[in-house]
Amino acid sequence: MNNNLPNISLVLGGARSGKSQFAENLALKTELDPYYFATSQAYDTEMKDRISKHQIDRGDLWATLEEPLELSTLLLSEARPERIILVDCLTLWVTNLMMAEKDIVDEFRDFIDTLHKLNGPVIFVSNEVGQGIVPDNAMARAFRDYAGRLHQDIAAIADDVYFITAGLQQRLK
Amino acid sequence: MNNNLPNISLVLGGARSGKSQFAENLALKTELDPYYFATSQAYDTEMKDRISKHQIDRGDLWATLEEPLELSTLLLSEARPERIILVDCLTLWVTNLMMAEKDIVDEFRDFIDTLHKLNGPVIFVSNEVGQGIVPDNAMARAFRDYAGRLHQDIAAIADDVYFITAGLQQRLK
Amino acid sequence: MNNNLPNISLVLGGARSGKSQFAENLALKTELDPYYFATSQAYDTEMKDRISKHQIDRGDLWATLEEPLELSTLLLSEARPERIILVDCLTLWVTNLMMAEKDIVDEFRDFIDTLHKLNGPVIFVSNEVGQGIVPDNAMARAFRDYAGRLHQDIAAIADDVYFITAGLQQRLK
Repeated sequence: MNNNLPNISLVLGGARSGKSQFAENLALKTELDPYYFATSQAYDTEMKDRISKHQIDRGDLWATLEEPLELSTLLLSEARPERIILVDCLTLWVTNLMMAEKDIVDEFRDFIDTLHKLNGPVIFVSNEVGQGIVPDNAMARAFRDYAGRLHQDIAAIADDVYFITAGLQQRLK
Repeated sequence: MNNNLPNISLVLGGARSGKSQFAENLALKTELDPYYFATSQAYDTEMKDRISKHQIDRGDLWATLEEPLELSTLLLSEARPERIILVDCLTLWVTNLMMAEKDIVDEFRDFIDTLHKLNGPVIFVSNEVGQGIVPDNAMARAFRDYAGRLHQDIAAIADDVYFITAGLQQRLK
Repeated sequence: MNNNLPNISLVLGGARSGKSQFAENLALKTELDPYYFATSQAYDTEMKDRISKHQIDRGDLWATLEEPLELSTLLLSEARPERIILVDCLTLWVTNLMMAEKDIVDEFRDFIDTLHKLNGPVIFVSNEVGQGIVPDNAMARAFRDYAGRLHQDIAAIADDVYFITAGLQQRLK
């Protein structure tokens, strides 16, 4: 693998912070073959519109794969030194895991194990969801706990971590 | 216009982060004539108390104008090289536009056009609202999408952007 | 008091940001006797699990005291030059004050007065709760206003202030 490139990058930010755009630019700057891994499933029209808007924004430079659940397996099989994989986004993956009633602790352990074995660089995009008021319902509290825990675990082994606000970056690591 | 002064500044922060106070100090440091543009409308007692507390905090150094909707028009007519205009806050303006059922995309395009034509410096204050859990209702989701989009658009052309936490500043741009 | 140590530190962060872990490391690095002041009351099983998980994480290096309300009194009597006190967390203290229907303004004034008189260093952990959408109910709005105001007041007199995201620190002061 090209040792000048970071293996794992994490791009965090709030809703409509410009984090996806930033991550896409980060991927394209590597000049590797860009692969877009969407964790989204189009449940409704609002979501469909978002996904299709994102695809139009990216253009057809990108190979695109959709995988709501088996992210670890896909990364393991698809990562290559000559590819840059962009996963957008992890919070949706966590949502999918919860809706599919997976064992989240198990899933996260497998995922972090996988990150140590990847054969090429990956950029992860994820939503910061923990800086508002404590949510009323237990499911939402569990979700933001899982998201926060996952961000910490990835950040600990990531080569670089960015926080995006209003389209502007802060380098956290 | 005084070329040593930034034309457009954006001050972001959460609720009670000290962003208004920071923006007011920023305005006063310019030593230009301070103009305060409030986007707030006093719907209820809670809001009235907030507005009057803010006015007392600012003192009578400031000229004050209130405009819930026609912000672009007002900025175009009132910006002057010898004035510093403080707009507090943009998220309330977005709320007002939504309640008045305006075409937000149109309004934002006019607004960004206006920012390119201003005849004097402006400081915008706005709330970061996108770093909590995804809101349950579609209106709130639309609101935070609009707010985030607006912040990105202004930040892209602003001379400086600050994020305020616990009264302390981080310079984002 | 050892003048090489900060007297007051404030560690802010969202839910599951790693702020408690960061603060504990900060405390242990001082090599003073670590005292853990919990503001939590175990109302329910979810909370009990969290508290007991935190205690197991910390190990038995720490002396632990629980005080949901009389934080100022406890700090005044327990701070010593040879001790490092970690208060986790302030947002829970604010919640406790509101539930006990205390006069929050009075409590905060006493608290800030107390901070000027302490006989040893203290690290405060608190949740950033103001960067999401405006909460629907007045109680939650009041809570995040109080939390934000308290953070500002402490940050103004703190020797250092950190913001933690995904386990990574940003120094705000």
